[in-house]
Amino acid sequence: MALRTLSAKNAAALDQELMTTGAFSIDQLMELAGLSVSQAVFKLQPLSSGKRILVACGPGNNGGDGLVAARHLFHYGYQPTIYYPKQSKNDLYQRLSKQLKDLKIPFTDDFHGAIEQTDHIVDAIFGFSFSGEVREPFPSVIEALRDTKIPVLAVDAPSSWNIEDGPPASGPGKGFTPDALISLTAPKPLVKWFQGRHFLGGRFLSPAVAEKYELDLPKYEGLDQIVEIV
Amino acid sequence: MALRTLSAKNAAALDQELMTTGAFSIDQLMELAGLSVSQAVFKLQPLSSGKRILVACGPGNNGGDGLVAARHLFHYGYQPTIYYPKQSKNDLYQRLSKQLKDLKIPFTDDFHGAIEQTDHIVDAIFGFSFSGEVREPFPSVIEALRDTKIPVLAVDAPSSWNIEDGPPASGPGKGFTPDALISLTAPKPLVKWFQGRHFLGGRFLSPAVAEKYELDLPKYEGLDQIVEIV
Repeated sequence: MALRTLSAKNAAALDQELMTTGAFSIDQLMELAGLSVSQAVFKLQPLSSGKRILVACGPGNNGGDGLVAARHLFHYGYQPTIYYPKQSKNDLYQRLSKQLKDLKIPFTDDFHGAIEQTDHIVDAIFGFSFSGEVREPFPSVIEALRDTKIPVLAVDAPSSWNIEDGPPASGPGKGFTPDALISLTAPKPLVKWFQGRHFLGGRFLSPAVAEKYELDLPKYEGLDQIVEIV
Repeated sequence: MALRTLSAKNAAALDQELMTTGAFSIDQLMELAGLSVSQAVFKLQPLSSGKRILVACGPGNNGGDGLVAARHLFHYGYQPTIYYPKQSKNDLYQRLSKQLKDLKIPFTDDFHGAIEQTDHIVDAIFGFSFSGEVREPFPSVIEALRDTKIPVLAVDAPSSWNIEDGPPASGPGKGFTPDALISLTAPKPLVKWFQGRHFLGGRFLSPAVAEKYELDLPKYEGLDQIVEIV
């Protein structure tokens, strides 16, 4: 099943529309996005195969989704660790971080040490608004994601990939091919170049909005907030 | 299993604590509460046994939980109808209502007509902050809930029950015994008098807060946001 994709420009427009005429708050959308991410981890990494999840969070909304996912993962029984080197002053992200600290979830500054002690990695560094250069301290983080044998789930986009054109031809992300991807709301054009397991989250989209943006609403099962695209 | 309960006063204090030192926003908590309610409906009312769900919403947070639940129920494949006669000017409730209208979920003013055309009812009229009188137009609504043979799921409290002392000795709620109850965050003392199926939602509570308020953290399964107390 090849779902229709949403360009970076339309993804930004849709996000904006959800929060204006759609009447969703960012808190609500991020809670639902992070919940979706946590459900994908649950499918990819059974608790019995290792509970340690390293969540690498970038400075924007993609990182916020990672913070929410980490909270849900804790409640499922995982042991998340957070790498969040560029913490925003944004009130929402600060609150999401506080919620994790109240659960005594550790934050680390040492990604390269942490990657040696985890069973699964969530790449929540850059999402659909990424373009251009990978700034410090993320180049070496993305190289480590590229080189590790630990499975990686990318949130919305493999970090450093171009949203339209996929894997970069040079730079730290050259050759970075995560094991799995969860597209949020809708797949972006980069999925054409993606080979791993692919999930979609966004079980809140109205049929009218899906039609307006020419998106497919796939069939979710039961109470699932995600669906695997096969 | 008899879980420890949370008095009305402590429920209010805990709610306040979650939104201040706990750093949760009301949007977030309501999204999680409504999601829990929707999962209880899914367990009680299989889609194959009838999809029509009448959600009766009161003017406060309990009603807001009902509005969120209705949105999730729609996405699961149910056909919700909303009875929401006292709509607050509160921005959050207005946004939650807008989200339902964008899904073309019908709002009705005629509860007594609607109850004849539904398969399941969600009582999201009054929650833990209820005390005193049942005001118009809810007395006849609660009488209808009492008299109907359609199964009713009450959110946090059977509406009109006293949070501490349970079923009222007089008034419209006398003899109202819903089939099921979902306690949010923690059971309230009224559960002592409740005989039906009992669910708990609140898979976001930190061990530290549970300890402070002397609450039990039951074992949730898998990705469930609810657990049945048996």
